[in-house]
Amino acid sequence: MAILIAKWQNRSMTKLKKIAQYLTEKKWDMTFITNPTTVNYLTGFAMDPHERIMGLMIFPDRAPLLFTPELEVEKSKTFVDFDVIGYADSENPWIKIHAQLSHQNIKTIAVEFDHLILSKSDGLKSVVSDSTFTNLSPYINQLRLIKSDDEIQKMIKAGQYADRCFDIGFEFAASQQHITEMDVVAKIEFEMKRQGISEMSFETMVLTGARAANPHGVPEPVDIQPNKLLLFDLGVMSQGYASDASRTISIGQPSDFDRKIYDITREAQQAAFDFVKPGVTAFEIDQVARDIITKAGYGEYFTHRTGHGIGMDVHEFPSIGGSEDITIEKGMCFSIEPGIYIPNKVGVRIEDCLYVTETGAKSFTQTPKDLLLY
Amino acid sequence: MAILIAKWQNRSMTKLKKIAQYLTEKKWDMTFITNPTTVNYLTGFAMDPHERIMGLMIFPDRAPLLFTPELEVEKSKTFVDFDVIGYADSENPWIKIHAQLSHQNIKTIAVEFDHLILSKSDGLKSVVSDSTFTNLSPYINQLRLIKSDDEIQKMIKAGQYADRCFDIGFEFAASQQHITEMDVVAKIEFEMKRQGISEMSFETMVLTGARAANPHGVPEPVDIQPNKLLLFDLGVMSQGYASDASRTISIGQPSDFDRKIYDITREAQQAAFDFVKPGVTAFEIDQVARDIITKAGYGEYFTHRTGHGIGMDVHEFPSIGGSEDITIEKGMCFSIEPGIYIPNKVGVRIEDCLYVTETGAKSFTQTPKDLLLY
Repeated sequence: MAILIAKWQNRSMTKLKKIAQYLTEKKWDMTFITNPTTVNYLTGFAMDPHERIMGLMIFPDRAPLLFTPELEVEKSKTFVDFDVIGYADSENPWIKIHAQLSHQNIKTIAVEFDHLILSKSDGLKSVVSDSTFTNLSPYINQLRLIKSDDEIQKMIKAGQYADRCFDIGFEFAASQQHITEMDVVAKIEFEMKRQGISEMSFETMVLTGARAANPHGVPEPVDIQPNKLLLFDLGVMSQGYASDASRTISIGQPSDFDRKIYDITREAQQAAFDFVKPGVTAFEIDQVARDIITKAGYGEYFTHRTGHGIGMDVHEFPSIGGSEDITIEKGMCFSIEPGIYIPNKVGVRIEDCLYVTETGAKSFTQTPKDLLLY
Repeated sequence: MAILIAKWQNRSMTKLKKIAQYLTEKKWDMTFITNPTTVNYLTGFAMDPHERIMGLMIFPDRAPLLFTPELEVEKSKTFVDFDVIGYADSENPWIKIHAQLSHQNIKTIAVEFDHLILSKSDGLKSVVSDSTFTNLSPYINQLRLIKSDDEIQKMIKAGQYADRCFDIGFEFAASQQHITEMDVVAKIEFEMKRQGISEMSFETMVLTGARAANPHGVPEPVDIQPNKLLLFDLGVMSQGYASDASRTISIGQPSDFDRKIYDITREAQQAAFDFVKPGVTAFEIDQVARDIITKAGYGEYFTHRTGHGIGMDVHEFPSIGGSEDITIEKGMCFSIEPGIYIPNKVGVRIEDCLYVTETGAKSFTQTPKDLLLY
């Protein structure tokens, strides 16, 4: 345990120092980092204060300071080697923060525009009234964008759990009649919890037949239909990192049409995946998948971007086929997940998350992508 | 189904009209409501756009407008009887919103300071550059604060599921040796999913012995200890409403000390619960529980507020014993959950959520509160 903590501190100090250096360059006076995932990324301390306040204050020229609900002070101290200040539920947190900062000349505070809500931003402004806020989110995104070997190892592990989920789900779905979507979700999550996974990375999705034609459909207690496709989208949180993968299988014999839609999606997913390497752009990757589906005549039914970044959050920067482009680099991790959704007919999505290598990409999930018949 | 939709529209129109009226009174030009729970509360349309943008625009003098990711347009139209505008992943949502609003003279936009993040607030500002933002959160909190009979019925149902969780968890925890905390969590959530509950209201908590001395402890694959207390904190989401309850039971015979701590907590919880009625204040309720624990000598180990509001969110306005007071009214719903947490020794919490009646309060959960020995 002592070794583990020492290792975290080492890691975290490197990142904290990077931010302190960045503040110096920018001539910003401090951070007030509120996103629990960022705090976890920088310090190893994982905690969500929900409506309470947590703020990681990093300064250009002195030790950081963590402000957190009193309930979390003890735990946080096993992760950070700098001061932690707690506040009780009966205290006004902003007054307590003011006491820390009032004797300092704080002009510019770097906060995460992608996380800080207006009420907390107003609270902070009320105690450092002469300060202006500047956006730290782009720099944090940039820091988190390229994954270290250590992070990729954790994501490989999270991917292995996703593969295990597919094994469990496919088998259970086909094991007897009158199994419902929700039964399969329950079975998968039960087995994961039994293996020590305390959190899925999002609500597990199991959708039968035409119900999968809604890309954001929600499982219900409805029977899985024979001779129809069955779509799974799932992932777990493991050691702070997310996995995310989709497979569409067939329960019994699919119709020729369903198989055709599957094969087009399969081809698009594989082509986009194979196209990934350092130097190509996110728009180009999206285009590779989209062209195949469009040429096959189903472009209008591929209604979302091709992928999203993944790491400590299941959806993070960058977007693959969103409204902004980016050039791909080694160490980036993102999903490739084209889908075809034909209302009242069929829905197919195939998704792997990958990490970019020097020459291409490797998948975090290994479950076969040829259409599996159960 | 048609009747169900008609009912929702009826409900939602009443609330939407209330907000339109409020805008007129305040001379505000429109809302841009981004909190998915608020949108659900107002319209019955339940959807979380995550990093994408959803905004419900209500105007003083004309029909509302829902802006949402393209993927959700079809579904949303079954809930609202006004226009819905979608945007694709490849489009810049702010430009599309600008197109809607540019020909209007928008001076003041009411947004939820408790939900809107700075980057989205900046996005909105960029397209309505002359506007100022005003905070709609207090009014929304006020609207949601007093629950209707219909809402209370849903919360009673959610509470019944929580009672069922306790039955399942207590029995399973005591059913054999070498059951772990995570096993019990897995079992409870599995059975709930099999009954059609797609979401717990938060991560189910099962903590054995001294591990319960951390009020925000996290279950692990560790064996439940015999002759120790076992703390449960759990709830489900049912029809959009949350339940939340805690019980501490004994697996085998508790020590005299553990029983003493239990009895003090039990007395504090019951006294605070019995004290609740219209006209008393949140601070007074907190004080009733705190006084009993303090007089028994354990005040320093009751480290959190006595309770929190509950409804569509598991934690919502008001706080019971937070930094702000409020006078209790009929129809308010909140938790009463004192606890005593003695590091490395024992943790006890007993929690019911209640709704305030004309003369007192009624609990959403009925699981006995005398110490149960399993």
